[in-house]
Amino acid sequence: MEAGLFTANNLWMMVCTALVFFMHLGFSFLEIGLTRQKNTVNILFKNVFIITVGLLIYYIGGFNLMYPGDFNGYVGFGGFGLPAPVTPEGALDLTYNEGYTYWTDFLFQGMFAATAATIVSGAVAERIKLGSFMIFTVLYVGLVYPIVGSWQWGGGFLSSLAYGEAEGFYDFAGSTLVHSVGGWGALIAIYLLGARIGKFGEDGKPKAIPGHNLPLTAAGVLILWLGWFGFNGGSVLSADPALTSLVLVTTSLAAAAGGVSAFLMSAALYKNYDLTMFLNGILGGLVGITAGADLMSPNEAVMIGLLAGIIIVLGVALIDKLKLDDPVGAVAVHLICGIWGTLAVGLFGDKAGLDQFLVQLAGVGAAAVFCSVFGFLILFVLKKTIGLRVSEQEELQGLDIHEHGMDAYADFRMNQH
Amino acid sequence: MEAGLFTANNLWMMVCTALVFFMHLGFSFLEIGLTRQKNTVNILFKNVFIITVGLLIYYIGGFNLMYPGDFNGYVGFGGFGLPAPVTPEGALDLTYNEGYTYWTDFLFQGMFAATAATIVSGAVAERIKLGSFMIFTVLYVGLVYPIVGSWQWGGGFLSSLAYGEAEGFYDFAGSTLVHSVGGWGALIAIYLLGARIGKFGEDGKPKAIPGHNLPLTAAGVLILWLGWFGFNGGSVLSADPALTSLVLVTTSLAAAAGGVSAFLMSAALYKNYDLTMFLNGILGGLVGITAGADLMSPNEAVMIGLLAGIIIVLGVALIDKLKLDDPVGAVAVHLICGIWGTLAVGLFGDKAGLDQFLVQLAGVGAAAVFCSVFGFLILFVLKKTIGLRVSEQEELQGLDIHEHGMDAYADFRMNQH
Amino acid sequence: MEAGLFTANNLWMMVCTALVFFMHLGFSFLEIGLTRQKNTVNILFKNVFIITVGLLIYYIGGFNLMYPGDFNGYVGFGGFGLPAPVTPEGALDLTYNEGYTYWTDFLFQGMFAATAATIVSGAVAERIKLGSFMIFTVLYVGLVYPIVGSWQWGGGFLSSLAYGEAEGFYDFAGSTLVHSVGGWGALIAIYLLGARIGKFGEDGKPKAIPGHNLPLTAAGVLILWLGWFGFNGGSVLSADPALTSLVLVTTSLAAAAGGVSAFLMSAALYKNYDLTMFLNGILGGLVGITAGADLMSPNEAVMIGLLAGIIIVLGVALIDKLKLDDPVGAVAVHLICGIWGTLAVGLFGDKAGLDQFLVQLAGVGAAAVFCSVFGFLILFVLKKTIGLRVSEQEELQGLDIHEHGMDAYADFRMNQH
Repeated sequence: MEAGLFTANNLWMMVCTALVFFMHLGFSFLEIGLTRQKNTVNILFKNVFIITVGLLIYYIGGFNLMYPGDFNGYVGFGGFGLPAPVTPEGALDLTYNEGYTYWTDFLFQGMFAATAATIVSGAVAERIKLGSFMIFTVLYVGLVYPIVGSWQWGGGFLSSLAYGEAEGFYDFAGSTLVHSVGGWGALIAIYLLGARIGKFGEDGKPKAIPGHNLPLTAAGVLILWLGWFGFNGGSVLSADPALTSLVLVTTSLAAAAGGVSAFLMSAALYKNYDLTMFLNGILGGLVGITAGADLMSPNEAVMIGLLAGIIIVLGVALIDKLKLDDPVGAVAVHLICGIWGTLAVGLFGDKAGLDQFLVQLAGVGAAAVFCSVFGFLILFVLKKTIGLRVSEQEELQGLDIHEHGMDAYADFRMNQH
Repeated sequence: MEAGLFTANNLWMMVCTALVFFMHLGFSFLEIGLTRQKNTVNILFKNVFIITVGLLIYYIGGFNLMYPGDFNGYVGFGGFGLPAPVTPEGALDLTYNEGYTYWTDFLFQGMFAATAATIVSGAVAERIKLGSFMIFTVLYVGLVYPIVGSWQWGGGFLSSLAYGEAEGFYDFAGSTLVHSVGGWGALIAIYLLGARIGKFGEDGKPKAIPGHNLPLTAAGVLILWLGWFGFNGGSVLSADPALTSLVLVTTSLAAAAGGVSAFLMSAALYKNYDLTMFLNGILGGLVGITAGADLMSPNEAVMIGLLAGIIIVLGVALIDKLKLDDPVGAVAVHLICGIWGTLAVGLFGDKAGLDQFLVQLAGVGAAAVFCSVFGFLILFVLKKTIGLRVSEQEELQGLDIHEHGMDAYADFRMNQH
Repeated sequence: MEAGLFTANNLWMMVCTALVFFMHLGFSFLEIGLTRQKNTVNILFKNVFIITVGLLIYYIGGFNLMYPGDFNGYVGFGGFGLPAPVTPEGALDLTYNEGYTYWTDFLFQGMFAATAATIVSGAVAERIKLGSFMIFTVLYVGLVYPIVGSWQWGGGFLSSLAYGEAEGFYDFAGSTLVHSVGGWGALIAIYLLGARIGKFGEDGKPKAIPGHNLPLTAAGVLILWLGWFGFNGGSVLSADPALTSLVLVTTSLAAAAGGVSAFLMSAALYKNYDLTMFLNGILGGLVGITAGADLMSPNEAVMIGLLAGIIIVLGVALIDKLKLDDPVGAVAVHLICGIWGTLAVGLFGDKAGLDQFLVQLAGVGAAAVFCSVFGFLILFVLKKTIGLRVSEQEELQGLDIHEHGMDAYADFRMNQH
């Protein structure tokens, strides 16, 4: 292989790694913007914890749990740490992969890993105990995410789940393996946690608890869109010009279409121009295209995005109806649109067909069962031991003062909610 | 062509595409920072609308209006959607271009397209009706921007406007084709809209209406500078090492020089250290170097930037004097420095000369006439039908509550302006 | 050399240049977030001044002072401006370097140069006179930084300081040459300036002065981490796949480890979950790995980071104990961890050994003496002439109103501190 091509491939993967890392700022901004100022330090702390501890855990064991080499297809482990493949001379073996080095592989995948817990972080905001969340993060990033990932990207049973014309489950960049995995954790967690005080009135009707910093929310979504250039673009696993550029086009068109249809749908239903719905529609489009970003034509990407935007508006209403409290809309965005995107591979694009659709459904189901069961077990044990939820007083006064002894905006007077 | 080189070229164009996309966060931050909190959600909504709808419109028709193929040189249309060039085998035709694939071409150009409307967005902030702005955006991004663009970048009459020694109009990355196009729209719009309530006292003297979040303004300008690495760097249309790196140097030096001269000029005139003038000077330098970033030596780039900074300070004062109200200084930055940068191609650098200067002047004039006339038509019809401006009550109470039913910073008490 | 490889190398260096530029937004956010709202415009002004003036000064003389060509090893000067190496045909000479063009070289180094002054900026915040700071910046970026840099990266005496088995001082990306240089300036400056009013009670005990915008602080640190991909990744001076990807891994693991150990250490010592200590720990890890990011295994990077995090917590306490007032922790992060990272090259990794350790110590000492002496001279002369510190009234009311006549957040009521 010519040196320039390998260098360019690896370079692209490093750029994408940087972009996926940057998504953690996007998630942080999104989450703090949509919640109240009194819990801002707590949310930032959780997000910083996730990216640092998540990366270390993935380094210690997660990477080799997700890519165990030859294994039974369900769970395997390649050993602790990063035993780099080396040439007889002791240098890094550059024939490890056509698209990137071993180090790049680890870091790109490591940036993905922390995302699963970040998705949960937003949903449980403003009421979860920090200690419980930290334990949950360690277990979810360290075990649940890599095991599910190994089923497909590690060469496990989902990747070879043939049925009729379908040659295996397909999830290009993780509508299921990343977003739904995080989404199931979020759903279980908000079910076990219960709603924030004041979210549902005495009549049981949901009450909006407005976010305290919408500029940061909007910035978060634009940063996430930017980061998705790396999330999806890097999932090509090389800088292949035709494929990477197609992926950026389908990703961006789906994002745009998702935003526009969510905006129009919410304007039609609720008669106002809702910025947060517009923004969540963009995220829904992004999650929706993720499973098949490399398989779709631009027209199909727009269709997937338009439907994702509608799903978002209905999904957010559904969560409310179920008396669940998801401050940032994480379940609608990551779980519901993650499922939508995974199934869309069977409906649109190069692999569309009933057999593929059924295989996609099977993959969705496998992730659902595993993540729900393990997520429930972890969170249920935490609830029965150290407890999941802060005290009523702490929730009312804010987690920032109680858990961190500091105020996110020390110089400004706040309204008390 | 060797695969590594094509891959690297296309990779650079994708990175630049991402950077230009990121400029939309820069514009958003800049605009909300320089305006009042009560209109923040409205501005964010407009910006998110522009990037999503702008991209979709460019996809539906704009791209093929701007690059129509063989045409009469004034207006042509290549058809709807993205009919990708394919090889006989059905794969994307990679000989389409030496520097990038067809998908990359579309997306890079699509990110540029939305910028024209974004420039207008800042100027009309705090008083324009959302519905009218959305209609204007669709028409301006969908028709005006691509038609003017086709005259030069699509191979139209400006690109072959020979005169004496000048072989054609020159606008490397869009001082005229992007920035002046947006700037003319902004000028027409603020003329038709009128000033914000309270901008001019009973004595007719302009009164400063301070922006509500200068950290976001500064962040916006730094993000825009970063984005300009892609805006100008990508306009090389390949990763050519000598040319791309020269362009980054001239771009950055002009930005730095523009900031410093605006700061010194405003300190000399007004005896204070004005942060917003410093920041607008940077933007002026960036807009000024854009037309000839690939033609200038570092010394010439510094000269162009220094003059742009002075022009900004005088331009902002001129707008005030004309009793026009431009909350973010968009006309001074994008229109006046856009003209300056376009003319500078005739004064400095590889193409300098009287003939080139006159051709540059002709290009400025052509854009001026077309954008003014069409911008005026669109906005005048809107004014006479659904109206351009919100009610006095809405303007006083803020557009966020009236048009969006939400507050950008729900937890903070605000001073009422 | 094949064109694709050179293009990819230069492309990587341009991407890294953009990332290092973006660090200036990171520093700005970090600094304003950790200080009070009344001094926000002032801090932003200083940061914008540094990046613009710093780049121009480096262009005028700094670059050729840092890379003077053949020289005596202590101080040399290659001439003013940027006399680009050209081929006989007058084009840019692309054999100048295997990894990048002359223009890329200048711009990448120029982005580094301004960092030294930025580090000082945070430490002296909220009380330094703007004029004095501007003069200091010009001299420190224009003379002190490039001269120290020339000793190693310009091929001066440190680079060839052989001792026993050690072949020369080693500082991969600037733990000493950038971070300690800035850190010494910061230390001298806060010593000469004195503490902010109210920092130490009548009993001499330090009192926390809380920052006014922790979301921006957290964003600043994440942006700095992202920027460090370019800071360290670009210091490979090519896109060499094995080396660049290793550097990104060691850099990220050290950052993560530094954050976690600082969080745990401060939780153990002070019994709370301190977000700012967590964030400063990340920065400590980044500074600590910078001198040897290309020499360390992942395990060694984690070790260096863990120790850096502990050093941060102790370092911040030490600064307090010495009655010094460093609002952002710049001395602990950049000076102390810069020294730690430089010495770590003698303790861990490919060059570890007593001889190397002693050479590293010598390099630390050389920078210490030169920066302290010259920093002291500059600041002492300023103190005795125009003065270093604003008036008590100005400090109490805030520098924004006094020096800039504007308020960073015009629409919000503030608590007066």
